[in-house]
Amino acid sequence: MSASKCSRLSGALIEQLLDSVDSVLFDCDGVIWRGDQAIPGAAQVINRLKEKGKRVFFVTNNSSKTRRMYAEKMSGMGFNVSEEEVFGTAYCSAVYLKTVCHVEGKVYLIGSDAMRQELEAMGIPHTGVGADHIVGRQADWANVPLDPEVKAVVVGFDEHFSYMKMNRAFQYLSQRDCLFVGTNRDTKLPLEGGKAVPGTGCLLQAVETAAQRRAQTVGKPHRFMFDCVASKFGVERGRCLMVGDRLDTDILLGSNCGLKTLLTLTGVSSVADAEAHQRSGCPERQGMVPDYYVDSIADLLPALQG
Amino acid sequence: MSASKCSRLSGALIEQLLDSVDSVLFDCDGVIWRGDQAIPGAAQVINRLKEKGKRVFFVTNNSSKTRRMYAEKMSGMGFNVSEEEVFGTAYCSAVYLKTVCHVEGKVYLIGSDAMRQELEAMGIPHTGVGADHIVGRQADWANVPLDPEVKAVVVGFDEHFSYMKMNRAFQYLSQRDCLFVGTNRDTKLPLEGGKAVPGTGCLLQAVETAAQRRAQTVGKPHRFMFDCVASKFGVERGRCLMVGDRLDTDILLGSNCGLKTLLTLTGVSSVADAEAHQRSGCPERQGMVPDYYVDSIADLLPALQG
Repeated sequence: MSASKCSRLSGALIEQLLDSVDSVLFDCDGVIWRGDQAIPGAAQVINRLKEKGKRVFFVTNNSSKTRRMYAEKMSGMGFNVSEEEVFGTAYCSAVYLKTVCHVEGKVYLIGSDAMRQELEAMGIPHTGVGADHIVGRQADWANVPLDPEVKAVVVGFDEHFSYMKMNRAFQYLSQRDCLFVGTNRDTKLPLEGGKAVPGTGCLLQAVETAAQRRAQTVGKPHRFMFDCVASKFGVERGRCLMVGDRLDTDILLGSNCGLKTLLTLTGVSSVADAEAHQRSGCPERQGMVPDYYVDSIADLLPALQG
Repeated sequence: MSASKCSRLSGALIEQLLDSVDSVLFDCDGVIWRGDQAIPGAAQVINRLKEKGKRVFFVTNNSSKTRRMYAEKMSGMGFNVSEEEVFGTAYCSAVYLKTVCHVEGKVYLIGSDAMRQELEAMGIPHTGVGADHIVGRQADWANVPLDPEVKAVVVGFDEHFSYMKMNRAFQYLSQRDCLFVGTNRDTKLPLEGGKAVPGTGCLLQAVETAAQRRAQTVGKPHRFMFDCVASKFGVERGRCLMVGDRLDTDILLGSNCGLKTLLTLTGVSSVADAEAHQRSGCPERQGMVPDYYVDSIADLLPALQG
């Protein structure tokens, strides 16, 4: 539609773009909300898109909530959304383990209670969640009792991450044929007020360093999350728009899957970041240049109010 | 002395090599002991070297013991050793902070009680050691109370490593002018019977990933540990031998500092590993090829019994 990438989306171009797509994928944090605050106008944009017949989906790397928990949070913020439209990595990891890995056996889980629930909903047995503090002497740690039924280690966000959890994951991963799956590689979890805390990528990196193995990751920019949506809802990639605030996850996912891409500036990445990728001349970085950008997804509202 | 590197040290070559050096640096784990078991013959080798007038030092990346604790462990195994001859990363990190970083303020310490003791012996204030479990809600974690006097984050081996510790380190490292020091990057801590547990490198990698900063590391292969020995004891590098079981730490340290190098096969690395580095043709890997190797440092004993 546009000769040059990374152009500001405004005026008639907004309607043109929206006319060219049937489905819109939204990242959540930094796009439709920040922490517990909805981005002003976001709910109206989503609701109007649906009223206009667009299919809307939510794809988030955050693994700390189930689909239902997301749907409830969003409903509380005024979004017209159903559980089936939400694709978080807690849910998608369970789908990945079932449909791609065909895991047979238990999962050793470094993750949240939401991940536990999504595994159970998919009928995948696991070793449980919660604190795992250090006990005994160093010589004992290499001999921690292992569950012989464990056939996969899964790492997501876990506030109870500890040396002992890293050690157990390492001992399982030292065994033959143990699968290794991570929800995502985001290094930070942005919170309100420009603050952040360490993200799942830090935990995953620690376990990968110990095991000297690289995990399969489910989250953006890996295409599995799009495939998950596309296979359930028959999305046509050429008529699909990915909207996100991060170049290295959201926009790269869109590029990887052949979607149109829109960067919104209410989150992590800036236009300067995108332009730096564009200017780099590095082919690997071109996938992180969005087709368009907006200050906020609220900028789409005027075109939707007709 | 020898035209080709990585040759077996035996016969007359042993005496020749020992005649060419005044000082010998030994790594500990995998060289003079494994776990709590001394390598057979190691104590006699060390004691005879000293009787013959050689100066002997111990340089270990392990940060879980003070110099005194090492000296006591070694005395118990029959080694003739004094505290001043031991250079562990708990001690060397404290020296590094004092003499290289000139740290003024407190250290936020992810580490052992031994590290605490070595910091205190050097007069460096710190925030304490021990468990730090998660409390509160996610939104609170980015606002954990920080000690305004902290001017450095130091990461060593810490069995109480936790998400909260990683988060605190991240919050400190997000501040201006906060120093970032790691004891070492060993990814595994080998234990008896071929077992291992995750090493400090895993903890450090997690914090580095969160902070998006790279720590200064004190341990081998960085030359600081040799400088520490050399500056205290006036070691002449051309007449010094480094003995170790790891190519990527011990042997590389020796190469980096212009020492003669001897690989012993009682630990992590093999002759095949060394030969692969040699054959690679990669300049960066040549530093990991030792001058000589022995099955065990006990192989030096016959040459010392004259």
